[in-house]
Amino acid sequence: MNNFRFCSPTEFIFGKNTVDNVAQLIKQHNGTKVLIHYGCKSAEKNGLLDIIENSFRKEFIEYVKLGGVQPNPIDSLVYNGIELGREEKINFILAIGGGSVIDSAKAIAAGILYSGDFWDFFDGIAPIKCALPIGTILTLPAAGSEGSPNSVITKTDGMLKRGIGSSLLRPAFSIMDPLLTLTLPRCQTIYGIADMITHVTERYFTQTKGVDITDRICEAILLSIIQSSKILMQNPENYNARANIMWASTIAHNGICGVGREEDWATHALEHELSALYNIAHGAGLSVMLPAWMQYVYTAGIDRFVQFSIRVWNFKNIGSKKEIAMSGISSLKNFFQSIGLPTNFEQLGAKESDIDKLIKTLEINTNGKFGNFLHLTMNDARAIYKIASNS
Amino acid sequence: MNNFRFCSPTEFIFGKNTVDNVAQLIKQHNGTKVLIHYGCKSAEKNGLLDIIENSFRKEFIEYVKLGGVQPNPIDSLVYNGIELGREEKINFILAIGGGSVIDSAKAIAAGILYSGDFWDFFDGIAPIKCALPIGTILTLPAAGSEGSPNSVITKTDGMLKRGIGSSLLRPAFSIMDPLLTLTLPRCQTIYGIADMITHVTERYFTQTKGVDITDRICEAILLSIIQSSKILMQNPENYNARANIMWASTIAHNGICGVGREEDWATHALEHELSALYNIAHGAGLSVMLPAWMQYVYTAGIDRFVQFSIRVWNFKNIGSKKEIAMSGISSLKNFFQSIGLPTNFEQLGAKESDIDKLIKTLEINTNGKFGNFLHLTMNDARAIYKIASNS
Repeated sequence: MNNFRFCSPTEFIFGKNTVDNVAQLIKQHNGTKVLIHYGCKSAEKNGLLDIIENSFRKEFIEYVKLGGVQPNPIDSLVYNGIELGREEKINFILAIGGGSVIDSAKAIAAGILYSGDFWDFFDGIAPIKCALPIGTILTLPAAGSEGSPNSVITKTDGMLKRGIGSSLLRPAFSIMDPLLTLTLPRCQTIYGIADMITHVTERYFTQTKGVDITDRICEAILLSIIQSSKILMQNPENYNARANIMWASTIAHNGICGVGREEDWATHALEHELSALYNIAHGAGLSVMLPAWMQYVYTAGIDRFVQFSIRVWNFKNIGSKKEIAMSGISSLKNFFQSIGLPTNFEQLGAKESDIDKLIKTLEINTNGKFGNFLHLTMNDARAIYKIASNS
Repeated sequence: MNNFRFCSPTEFIFGKNTVDNVAQLIKQHNGTKVLIHYGCKSAEKNGLLDIIENSFRKEFIEYVKLGGVQPNPIDSLVYNGIELGREEKINFILAIGGGSVIDSAKAIAAGILYSGDFWDFFDGIAPIKCALPIGTILTLPAAGSEGSPNSVITKTDGMLKRGIGSSLLRPAFSIMDPLLTLTLPRCQTIYGIADMITHVTERYFTQTKGVDITDRICEAILLSIIQSSKILMQNPENYNARANIMWASTIAHNGICGVGREEDWATHALEHELSALYNIAHGAGLSVMLPAWMQYVYTAGIDRFVQFSIRVWNFKNIGSKKEIAMSGISSLKNFFQSIGLPTNFEQLGAKESDIDKLIKTLEINTNGKFGNFLHLTMNDARAIYKIASNS
């Protein structure tokens, strides 16, 4: 086990009707002038915004609103948020939505207190030294941004999709009401499932030895996601399955799965180029790239893939390691297909002929090298994209 | 799944030689005058105290020392700590040790800022409204106090052993170096294992439905503890097994195993009377009481015991539920015995003829009712103590 530091200070307020606590929570964190950040019009339509605005008025909390965050959030709205927030002298940001909204809110929270261009953080030329406090109301379990220190933003000039991480970006609180997710469109549910599964696998597939406890926790979360997903495919309004999925999304990415081990993140790097180029859902790209990555790298640590097959997919330890490992990879792929996720380029609307374009931006974003389970070059990336396109 | 709030803000600094960070961490938490609280002379003998004092002098951090905490920490030393801390105007407490030292430090941290008698907190007649910040250097993985909001203290007048919980008692940071545990006496290692296993089972055995994700996490931690314990019995200086056990002790009791579910705590209630009466190790009492409690209550939720047998002890779902459930209970008991833990009164030095005494204080401490998996009365408690005495 490697040395590590772990601190997840976010307060999670989980369950039915927990949105009622929002004004009080903001006051506890000394918020008096709030930027409410959200996505599409659904937050307005479903009445959630009304409830929150009413509670703010009752508690004399001032606020301004900035909606319009799209999946794969872009830099221009972050600039808008920074400008609006400075003008209005906000001291707290409330994000209502999923990972895209929360990631955009995090970039605004750090950018607003930085004298330079916020993209400097994503270029790696400036560290984040301070950020406004953020609260979230999660409406889409997927990215885990409600409990993570991460933010991913796309710079439209050059379509650069990049991530940053800083403990200063962890939300002060996250309100998580599974009732808000009962009627999520099926595609959002399954893309979320792919995202949280990949957050676990990027940590599970490691070369670090002697980390049994985090192995087991990763497997626990995967097993629970798979079980709840199967329930939701039959009964999308099953509260407990929604609740298990919602909490899984958080702990898949708050860091508890990664303590003491080297992480990988190659699948995310490969996917970011897909969603940047085609503006597809991140989860859809991941369900295509994760099995392809596995198929390419498994021989670099076959015992771990054997463990994955036995513990997560219930295979017996009979046959060659290769057979057992491939059975687990096939099972994951079959599971993705069974809930309607894409597992190849065609289903995604991606083209093999675009691989050169993907490699070009991947090379810029990774400096030509990425991955830890197996260190990958652009030749490896090309091969993995080809597996994904021919699956 | 029930509604819940969860916040575990403690920073964990885990791994080899992490004690080197202690002065810097205290400064980050604005500590300038520290009470160093510790147990037996081993902290002095093994040089740990010297290292810490040197680092304090280098960083110009003032300090006073209070050693002498015994297992099952008592009120008199807490009073001493409060008096010393006030006299010396300390603003930070560093606990070096296991759960007893940390629990004692927590009681001092809250008591020092309270004008009344600190035992009011344990009597339930005063809430904790503020507490000094605490840091810990964990030397004994067991109680999980390094990441928990709890403290258990024994009032020697009447031998009342009681627990309290408050988010204000969560340590600001905990330094956890598995190297410090490589040469722990075997008895301390196994008592710690019994303690952390019971912290998981007190949450796992619940009547709350639809909490698959926490079920799986509980099982993950149990499986990992069992695996690492077996390694340590063969090779007590195996670093990774020590590291897995150390981290298990923390997450078994920082709350992550209990989210969304009603907890039980009957085994702890039953045990507290044993360790208060005989001044035995808490873990030794737990390894006696846990299988006895299980044997008495399992029919109140047999499906959960069947799940425990299948997922933790690898039994097949063949035979009657009763057979499967009992197999799991026997496996736990056999596991305890295999690592040298007591599983009956005799091995503990307890007497069946003392059951009346145990019931008398249990009744005072629980108001005559306790447990949630099965609501228990003093008659039930008497029956469970009898099972333990006749095992």
